Amino acid sequence: MGIFSKDIKTMDDLFLHGLQDIYYAEKQITKALPKMIKLATNRDLTAGLSAHLKETEGQIKRLEQVFTLLGEEAKGAHCPAIDGIIKEADETSGEVADPAVLDAAIVANCQAVEHYEIARYGTLIAWAEELDNDEVISLLSANLNEEKAADAKLTGVALSKGVNSIAADAA
Amino acid sequence: MGIFSKDIKTMDDLFLHGLQDIYYAEKQITKALPKMIKLATNRDLTAGLSAHLKETEGQIKRLEQVFTLLGEEAKGAHCPAIDGIIKEADETSGEVADPAVLDAAIVANCQAVEHYEIARYGTLIAWAEELDNDEVISLLSANLNEEKAADAKLTGVALSKGVNSIAADAA
Repeated sequence: MGIFSKDIKTMDDLFLHGLQDIYYAEKQITKALPKMIKLATNRDLTAGLSAHLKETEGQIKRLEQVFTLLGEEAKGAHCPAIDGIIKEADETSGEVADPAVLDAAIVANCQAVEHYEIARYGTLIAWAEELDNDEVISLLSANLNEEKAADAKLTGVALSKGVNSIAADAA
Repeated sequence: MGIFSKDIKTMDDLFLHGLQDIYYAEKQITKALPKMIKLATNRDLTAGLSAHLKETEGQIKRLEQVFTLLGEEAKGAHCPAIDGIIKEADETSGEVADPAVLDAAIVANCQAVEHYEIARYGTLIAWAEELDNDEVISLLSANLNEEKAADAKLTGVALSKGVNSIAADAA
């Protein structure tokens, strides 16, 4: 959709735009995660991120099913938000000298990504409810639940698996 | 801090960087919110956003208290994440033709902002706990709780106050 061309006229249009936005975001995340996995040193963190990379590929397939249900071609819309979140993650990673501190920064940046997705899926599900599309709600809810679980796992890695305390000790 | 200069050596450095990031983000939000308030038409939405603008100014003051507690000058660090989220909000707003659909888009974009802040404050509080700084934890927790409440209020406006259903009827 072109900027300033006022292409979004209805809630169906807004929903499709949101779907294209998260589809683009998930694809960018599959490109960004391998870099984070390579930089991380804590084993629980690398294992968690690797599992989430696989999960993300499944989420992209669910989004493609949603496009099909709507009779639309699966395509992404450029999403400056996820680009900015990933750019910030890259920049911060480049500034951190200590590997343990870098792990804490990676957890933080992945949680910023998760929260972006939680916000977008939450909105899309609310809109799909208004548009009364149960199959779409079910597919998007599966993705939302995975994002929430991924965020909770990252909190677990940071706290009980000691990423933060090891980083603090590295000081 | 310069990119690639590896200025972040300790958790204290990482915490300060995170604080400068959210300080910059809150300031950008005080610039972005008036534009959203001007575009919104639903009264509950404009009232909610206006109240949150005032709240954001108080949050900036709390962040300045945190800088003071750390013996640091209050200054922002450029944050591509919030810039991207705000840019996306501006672009989407420019594409929506119908005022009721635009209200639904504004709620969605404000919730993306709230979730970004919830992620960042959550991280900063976890780091402050590791660094054992109770006063800082208390100030940041006050901001986090306000962001969570703002997000919940936006959900309320979208659902019980009918922003989404009016937008769907406008189709």
